[in-house]
Amino acid sequence: LKLFTLNSNKALAEQIAKVIGVELGKCSVDRFSDGEVQINIEESIRGCDVFIIQSTSAPVNEHLMELLIMIDALKRASAKTINIVIPYYGYARQDRKARAREPITAKLTANLIEKAGATRIITLDLHAPQIQGFFDIPIDHLVGVPILGEYFKSKNLDDVVIVSPDHGGVTRARRLAERLKAPIAIIDKRRPRPNVAEVMNIVGQVEGKTAILIDDMIDTAGTITLAANALIESGAKEVYACCTHPVLSGPAIERIQNSKIKELAVTNSIALTEEKKIDKVTELSVAPLMAEAI
Amino acid sequence: LKLFTLNSNKALAEQIAKVIGVELGKCSVDRFSDGEVQINIEESIRGCDVFIIQSTSAPVNEHLMELLIMIDALKRASAKTINIVIPYYGYARQDRKARAREPITAKLTANLIEKAGATRIITLDLHAPQIQGFFDIPIDHLVGVPILGEYFKSKNLDDVVIVSPDHGGVTRARRLAERLKAPIAIIDKRRPRPNVAEVMNIVGQVEGKTAILIDDMIDTAGTITLAANALIESGAKEVYACCTHPVLSGPAIERIQNSKIKELAVTNSIALTEEKKIDKVTELSVAPLMAEAI
Ligand SMILES: Nc1ncnc2c1ncn2[C@@H]1O[C@H](COP(=O)(O)O)[C@@H](O)[C@H]1O
Ligand SMILES: Nc1ncnc2c1ncn2[C@@H]1O[C@H](COP(=O)(O)O)[C@@H](O)[C@H]1O
Repeated sequence: LKLFTLNSNKALAEQIAKVIGVELGKCSVDRFSDGEVQINIEESIRGCDVFIIQSTSAPVNEHLMELLIMIDALKRASAKTINIVIPYYGYARQDRKARAREPITAKLTANLIEKAGATRIITLDLHAPQIQGFFDIPIDHLVGVPILGEYFKSKNLDDVVIVSPDHGGVTRARRLAERLKAPIAIIDKRRPRPNVAEVMNIVGQVEGKTAILIDDMIDTAGTITLAANALIESGAKEVYACCTHPVLSGPAIERIQNSKIKELAVTNSIALTEEKKIDKVTELSVAPLMAEAI
Repeated sequence: LKLFTLNSNKALAEQIAKVIGVELGKCSVDRFSDGEVQINIEESIRGCDVFIIQSTSAPVNEHLMELLIMIDALKRASAKTINIVIPYYGYARQDRKARAREPITAKLTANLIEKAGATRIITLDLHAPQIQGFFDIPIDHLVGVPILGEYFKSKNLDDVVIVSPDHGGVTRARRLAERLKAPIAIIDKRRPRPNVAEVMNIVGQVEGKTAILIDDMIDTAGTITLAANALIESGAKEVYACCTHPVLSGPAIERIQNSKIKELAVTNSIALTEEKKIDKVTELSVAPLMAEAI
């Protein structure tokens, strides 16, 4: 068994290696002067079961190409199996044609990863579980809810309600609620008439309660911060939020900082850059979960 | 016939469209907040022969992913044929395993482009002509020498010698020499002993002559500017240089500016950014050549 990391999430890779009790494989992943990816694998992997740890987080195209080129190099160096640990699967929101002439990039990238030579995928909280079917090789789909659940359990919050910020996330909220033995509520966004601002209607009881919002990913944080406001306006005592994948692009950190959210718990499926490590954000490690699947 | 351009080389695409006498297809190629590629094809292409114009020049991974996602979108929108016009084929120098455990990224990207759904490739001066064999779909391989040749013919230079900066480029120098009815010379780099600087030995007669250096691409411009120095030291009267693909990364422009090269003629297979448009650099258009192949 050989474990290699590329550039997206070295800290997580180190943690996974530690849990398993191996050293990370020697390998450098740099750029030539013109920006082309240059990979040097510095130890033999002939006949080995090789695991590559890489999230296709931003910069997604760089991280994806690093992954594809690494797979190519390992294949040509006669690795026995090439197992891809991809904690955050980028392009997952482009998983269907919602409009005419849209690409289905989540399927394209699945094809590219297979074509390059991957033999197995280990991933976490896909935006849609259907993406599993985009692969024809074995895929292990891990779930982040237990990690988030354990964390909030350890905080011993009183009178909790788990809130899904939209209809799509109710199953996820349900799972967290079961772990915390709490009821659920749903934010029901509705546009009363075209060209009129959306109204946030809350289905379920939140008054006087500690609300915990849960989503699979938080990108620009528009939805989650508006949901937090709506909860406070409806009488929630305080609002926590959590998600598996902290995409946190554009205005996200500023919005969270200025929002009614007391604390945001995320996993390290995507590495937080320094400016994203604010006090409100708590990072939980998926290394034990990933290590077990390896 | 529908012609679309992505972001790498819009000026060339406009020129090609003009030569053919069509409008470029309506299509926007942007980024979501998190950096993922967002493509909107704004007109029907069902049943059409579609041509995409895109060089995989720097930022190569961005331009390559734009291309793959566009191919995916066109395929799913029922294009009849998807023809890729790729004036500069990136990753071409990674075309063989020179060391153990190297990837062959030029083959990987060929596989990716085919897997995405391309049906034909039109390209120009591949770094190695063998890359044609990396594709199993039809590929038209165009040659830039006639364009460079016509340009230097029009300058009416006296007593010209065409110089290849290395052994690999002699065939190319030969072709240009035939067009200009000139002799050739070769720069023969040799390292007398390990850890000793290379010596540039010139094979052929350059004294008192106007030398024209030719290469397929100029990247950091180290080779070509050292070659120019060696030619002047060997008594060449003046030194011109030319190449098909102006990669011009890192110190290239500074080196060319400070070099003995009087003028560098390049094609627009790679778009020159503003800071690369210096007086010494002359840009020749491959639009008529490309348009003819379409
Ligand atoms: N990277 C992205 N950032 C924002 N929106 C996206 C991104 N990728 C896809 N989308 C859009 O998000 C929608 C799907 O999101 P969802 O309904 O949450 O599955 C589609 O309309 C996509 O066009
Ligand atoms: N983008 C790049 N920039 C510089 N060198 C490269 C690049 N890609 C590949 N190479 C190296 O260039 C050599 C091949 O160049 P050549 O001998 O001109 O075909 C190989 O040793 C490659 O490792």
